[in-house]
Amino acid sequence: MAHIKPADIERESMNILTAELTARGMVLEGETEAVVKRVIHTTADFDYAENLRFTPQAVARGVEALRGGVVVTDTHMALSGVSKPALARLGGTARCFMADPETAEQAKAAGSTRAAAAVLRAEAEVPAAILAVGNAPTALLRIAERMEAGWRPALVIGVPVGFVNVVESKERIWEVCTRLGVPAIVSLGRKGGSNVAAAICNALLYTAAGLLDPSSRN
Amino acid sequence: MAHIKPADIERESMNILTAELTARGMVLEGETEAVVKRVIHTTADFDYAENLRFTPQAVARGVEALRGGVVVTDTHMALSGVSKPALARLGGTARCFMADPETAEQAKAAGSTRAAAAVLRAEAEVPAAILAVGNAPTALLRIAERMEAGWRPALVIGVPVGFVNVVESKERIWEVCTRLGVPAIVSLGRKGGSNVAAAICNALLYTAAGLLDPSSRN
Repeated sequence: MAHIKPADIERESMNILTAELTARGMVLEGETEAVVKRVIHTTADFDYAENLRFTPQAVARGVEALRGGVVVTDTHMALSGVSKPALARLGGTARCFMADPETAEQAKAAGSTRAAAAVLRAEAEVPAAILAVGNAPTALLRIAERMEAGWRPALVIGVPVGFVNVVESKERIWEVCTRLGVPAIVSLGRKGGSNVAAAICNALLYTAAGLLDPSSRN
Repeated sequence: MAHIKPADIERESMNILTAELTARGMVLEGETEAVVKRVIHTTADFDYAENLRFTPQAVARGVEALRGGVVVTDTHMALSGVSKPALARLGGTARCFMADPETAEQAKAAGSTRAAAAVLRAEAEVPAAILAVGNAPTALLRIAERMEAGWRPALVIGVPVGFVNVVESKERIWEVCTRLGVPAIVSLGRKGGSNVAAAICNALLYTAAGLLDPSSRN
């Protein structure tokens, strides 16, 4: 194996997975293509070409919201995976409320999970955030509940992974977001994860960077 | 959906995936079972029941190495995913050299990737570490090269994900580890990731905790 530059490896990876998508007869639509490809790049799992769902113009609206916006993740792992340099170039920031002592206190007082308490903090402190949920179905359920009460986050990325309450939580957030006209990107079924949540944020960031400077990404 | 405690959700998740493994005729062997199940729990991807490879007693030796040992990850995302409380209970610590300015300088001076430079720092600073590689094939290749030169880390977890050099890097580390008698856990094929690397570390940590206190995990 010759020494290859990371940027060349990424370009070659995208070429390979694009060719395989075509060979499998999987057609990606317009603005969703960059997101689906980056998730497959992150997981090597072509199931995401079929299980990711986007509300109309979710990508365009997510990209807009990133400029000077705030990404809120439900795990520190997803937070770690979001490209901070790319986000900073757009004037954006990223936060995770999960491990704050204040969140733990509020969860204890309310008898809720920390994930659900963290959602209330996001609503109170950064109501126009992009919410990236890769782990906690209870976070998605709380977001849905608060949206019914009037909250309108900029974008909901709903991609928890797992075997209990996960499928239902994603169906619920999808129904609420489509009904209330809030942009959403959701992986239906069991699959997802903090890595998938971060990959979707990064795909939006790179798309935004490409719009600012088309030569910056291939 | 009723409110269910996280520990109950995890138990129920493990029951569901165990039943599905049985239904699919997938039989897991002894000490590897906890690791494979945790990776499937993290990814909802049953492919890991077939692509994870373990050298003999890799789990037992990894568990031993965690007591007072050091886990070195190749990404901050994997580092974030390793359970710090579980690790601290065993007197262990976790590190990632990737983002250190010193690593960047050494990579520049050597004309290598930062991932490869980070491996040299691990060898120099924590030679008996558990190496958890979820992202960079160049890290695995550098580990293989240094093992040929005499290095003997405690355990190599080789689970990068991707389309270029990834399959080859995992086949190479597997060959070197098996030939030199170094414990290894490798996901053959394209799949893996920082989340998988962290899940394997956590499975070892929980196995170790269970050995110390069998009532602590189900």
